Formats: sequence, structure tokens, C-alpha cells
Amino acid sequence: MNNAQSTRRMTIDAMQYSNWNREIFEEWRAADLACAHVTVSIWEDARETLHELGKWATRINQNSDILAPVRSVADLDQAYAEGKTGVIFGFQNSSPFEDDIRLVETFHDLGVKFAQPTYNIQTLVGGSCYEPTDSGLSRYGALVVGEMNRVGMIPDLSHSGVRTASDILDVSTKPVVYTHANPRFFYDHPRNVPNDLLKKVAASGGAVGLAPYPHLTPDDCSVEDFCAMAARVVELIGVEHVAIGTDTGLGHADGVLDWIRMGTWTIEKNYGAGSAANPGWAPLPSWYGGTKDLPDLFSALEKHGFSSDEVDLIAGGNWRRVFVESFVDAAPAADVA
Amino acid sequence: MNNAQSTRRMTIDAMQYSNWNREIFEEWRAADLACAHVTVSIWEDARETLHELGKWATRINQNSDILAPVRSVADLDQAYAEGKTGVIFGFQNSSPFEDDIRLVETFHDLGVKFAQPTYNIQTLVGGSCYEPTDSGLSRYGALVVGEMNRVGMIPDLSHSGVRTASDILDVSTKPVVYTHANPRFFYDHPRNVPNDLLKKVAASGGAVGLAPYPHLTPDDCSVEDFCAMAARVVELIGVEHVAIGTDTGLGHADGVLDWIRMGTWTIEKNYGAGSAANPGWAPLPSWYGGTKDLPDLFSALEKHGFSSDEVDLIAGGNWRRVFVESFVDAAPAADVA
Repeated sequence: MNNAQSTRRMTIDAMQYSNWNREIFEEWRAADLACAHVTVSIWEDARETLHELGKWATRINQNSDILAPVRSVADLDQAYAEGKTGVIFGFQNSSPFEDDIRLVETFHDLGVKFAQPTYNIQTLVGGSCYEPTDSGLSRYGALVVGEMNRVGMIPDLSHSGVRTASDILDVSTKPVVYTHANPRFFYDHPRNVPNDLLKKVAASGGAVGLAPYPHLTPDDCSVEDFCAMAARVVELIGVEHVAIGTDTGLGHADGVLDWIRMGTWTIEKNYGAGSAANPGWAPLPSWYGGTKDLPDLFSALEKHGFSSDEVDLIAGGNWRRVFVESFVDAAPAADVA
Repeated sequence: MNNAQSTRRMTIDAMQYSNWNREIFEEWRAADLACAHVTVSIWEDARETLHELGKWATRINQNSDILAPVRSVADLDQAYAEGKTGVIFGFQNSSPFEDDIRLVETFHDLGVKFAQPTYNIQTLVGGSCYEPTDSGLSRYGALVVGEMNRVGMIPDLSHSGVRTASDILDVSTKPVVYTHANPRFFYDHPRNVPNDLLKKVAASGGAVGLAPYPHLTPDDCSVEDFCAMAARVVELIGVEHVAIGTDTGLGHADGVLDWIRMGTWTIEKNYGAGSAANPGWAPLPSWYGGTKDLPDLFSALEKHGFSSDEVDLIAGGNWRRVFVESFVDAAPAADVA
């Protein structure tokens, strides 16, 4: 046990969005996953997000032998110590905030610790990576980022347009992250990140969750290719800012992909990160089929030349540090009307 | 009576947003107002807008001796013939559409015939005139305009940023309007309209509803100044494209102005069309205190040199023509999922 204990590695996956069931949670435990950031809104508005949070309360309750809610670093450390997987909530959109600045704090009080300004279309907050014109951060968006900084909710630039991402990095007083994205030098895709933004994320104290998600990696990407890419990102921004966000989505019905990409905003077909030539759920790579394969990915990183300490940082240490710097005791809002 | 009949002028006010009551409706009748475009959403989302439409159903029902709903040119002509004021619904925001393209047709079926892409902040559809950066029309926004064209809902550029307005004028296949705005040459304000956009509105077959609203006119604007401005706009784009949209807002409680400007998007004070130096409800000009003064405004236009036929166009004829060109029988949407 001491030996097993000594080989444990705090592992944090900064993005999963699956059709949740006990089997997935057991896979988390089999891989000794300390924490999963799970998406509770893609298109959902405030009201609909309350429902999703209610479902998660039940899921955690019904699986409390292996799951625990995480709202603080202490929660994370306790889940890890107890051999449970901590669950941390986040938004892949600002849709739950609607046009109401107060909802940032309200959803934070409900345990939401990450939020993206946009998913696949322009929002009140900013521009998506898929818009031909990225508005940058709107006035409301700047207020939202200010509130997120104040209450301790982490700005997640995944799916943002480059200009919106850059604006948020300029105004945020706390670490800013990409929970699930790769560098553009690895695969040139709107969802992936130019080098200058990777550097700004590092300068903010944030991290980038590299993603084995097929639409964000080159065709036939091998685990060696992925590790070599990670090494290049480490060279560029330092190992303290490189992490994992797998963008794992397991068990969804066929039609769900259309909803994920199209929500209700278009009648005509839209392919999101895919394309007309490659419209469906992309097959996962042989070397990453879900959380169960994370330990092997970490071994591959060591084999590629990373030290065990460096892999500890990539596997979870960096996310933990971001949490330490981000999850603050909030000062009260300026006034209450 | 024949004599009175012969001096009637079909009068249409393209923007009013008051704290509605019987007194206002009686003032409409005293001025023989044929039609008022009334705002049913400023910040309201879909659900809240349903409530506002429900209140209007009651208002029209309880005042059916002098009011009638207008969803077609035939409705307008009938209201005019019967000596009632036709009420036509519109949005000063795209917030009721939320992120759901289907809601354009649904709200049109509820009688909504005008919609702005934005009010005072960036939306999913486009950029507001108050944003430092105007995104232009988003991809969702282009789909919304397409749906509006298809079902017969008029795009209203009031409050839009210049780029968003220009984009809509580029893609719309039907007349595009400003229901309530003045030219920038008259008063340089973000809400007012540059000459090139005035020309594009005319080229689209649309019209501009000139507004005696104090924040959109120069200090101490006289009725002669207003008429001279109208004459310059007529010179620029032709009398067929110049109309009236008073932006009348009567009887609101003090706090309502904060809601109109700030909704729930900011905790810090925001002044909308006003300013820190000029924060409150601006006093109305001596020559325009409400619908009762419209006949005198039309007399002033005649005194300024417009012919009676020209004033007929400005007073309501041009809006009626825009309705004729806009209120089409819709073809069905491309598909129904």
C-alpha cells in the first residue's frame, strides 16, 4: 500500500462531457482520477442549467462511494485522499448568465468553477472561434470576467475567437485557461490556439488542457505525435502551464451531436468542429478511448523524455495550482440594488 | 363629416413605449393615430415576452372601442376606416429569439412585425451602437434576418452598430428600416444614422422614423430645426423614405429608466442615450409632448414647405408602403425536424 500510495499521481481531466452513468464513474476510479471538470451547460440558459445541476446533485449523491463535489482545493485534496473522484462543474458557454451579471455569483454559489465566454456562436459576452468576425469582449463580457475574477470562477477560452480570448487575457486579474484545446502549430483548426495566446495564458498563471479529441488533432495522430506536441508546448510556455483536458464524450446517442453543434440556432446543417466530409462522432484514437487510458498516456510522456515530476504537473499538478490561485474568498459585489 | 373625412391623414408612429393606460389610447384617437408600433420587449427573453403579449391582448380587448390589433395591411386599413388605432408589436432587441431560430416565426405568428438585432449591448445577432467594437451580423444573425424576411417581420436597425446595420442592409431581401432615429449630421450620437446608411435604407425600400426624442436631437431643438432636418433627409434619400417614429415614453416611474438602460447586465450605472451630466428622463420639447402634438408637427412640415401629399407620406403613407412590401405570405421553412 505504501508502494501503491507512492505511485499515485493526482490526475485532473479539465474537460469531459459524456452521457453519464456509473460505468464511466467506475472507469474514473480505475484510473484513479482525482477530479473531472464536467460540462453542465453547452446551450442551456439559466433555467435549464439549474436542471442540469439538479441532475448532478443526484448523480453525486447516488455515487457518493466514488464521487464527491469539488468547490475548493480542500475538497479536491479530500477527494484524492479518500480515493474518490472530485467533480467540478463548468459551462462551455455564457448562455446560463443570460444578460444578468448577478448570475455569475449565483452559479458560482452552485459550484460552477469554469465558464467559457462562447461556445460555437457569438454571445452577449464575446465572439466564437467559428464566427467570421470575432467581436472581442463586449462591455457586458468585461463585467462578466470581472465578476468571475471576483468570485473565483476560471475564464476558459476554449471555443473563443482569438480576439475575444486575447481581450480576456488582457483584462483578467486571475489565471486564464484553455480547458480543452491544442496548439495551432500542431493542427490548424479554429478551435486550436496560436502561439501568442499560449504565451499569454502562461503569463496569466493559467494552463492549457491538451486534448486527444480527434477533430483537434491531425489525422492518424499517434501517441508519440501527441507527446511530441506536448514537449513543444512545454518548450514554448513552460511545463507549469501544460495540462490535460480530454474533451471526452462517451455514450451519446447519434442525434446528440447535432444538438451539441446546432443547438436551436440553425435549421440548416452545421458541423461544428467536424465538416461535411467528416460529419459524425470521430472515432477515438487507439491510444485514448477514455479515462482508463490516461495512465498509459502519462507513461508515454515519460517515455518521450518527461521526468516523473513533470508528468505529475501535466497530469494534475498544474490544474491544482490554477485552482489554488483562482478559488479565492470573494469580496462582496460593489453594491446590491 | 365629409369635410372632416377629407382632411384625415393616415398617421403611423413607428415607436412608442409608454406606461400604457386608457388616457394614452384616447390621446391616440384625439390625434386620429391610425397605427402605433409599440415595444413588447427591451430586455425580455422569450418567456417574459409571452407575458407582455398577454398583457397587450388584454389591453386591446379592454379598449376594443378604440384599439385594434394590426398584423396586415388590411388590418391597418380597417382600423383607419373604423376610426380606431391599430397596434403593431415589435422588439427593441433580439433577446426574445434567444438562441432559437424557430422563435422568429413563432413570434411573428403572435403578431410581432418589427425586431431590432440589438438594444444597448451585443447580442447573439449583432453589435449595438454602444459597443466599442461592433461585431457586425453574426452567423446566427444572418439566419435570423433570413427568417424575418421569409415570414414578414421588418428588420429595425435602431440601436444597431453601424457595421451590423450595414451587414443587415446587405443581406436583407426586404425593406429595412430605422423606426426611431435621426441623422448624424443633425446630431452626432451613436444612436443616430450616418448618411451612407440612410441611403442604403432608402435603396432597400425602407424608411427612417425621425424622432423628436430629446437625447437624439440637439439642445433646444425647435420644431423649425426638426422640419429643416427632415427636409435635408428628404433631399438626401427622397420623401418616400422619410417617416416618423417618436420614441415616446410616457408615464414611466423613475426607476424604469435605469431598467431600460441597464436591464440586469451591469451593476455599475450606465446612462444609455443619456450621460452622467444628463442622466434622467429628458424633458420633451415644447412642440412635442406626445401623440396629441403630431398634427401640429405635420402643419409645421407644411409650413416649412412640404406639400400636403408629401406630409401624407411622412405621416404614415411611407410606413404603409413598407408594410405592403414587407408583410408577405411566408413560404414554409426549409424543413421541420
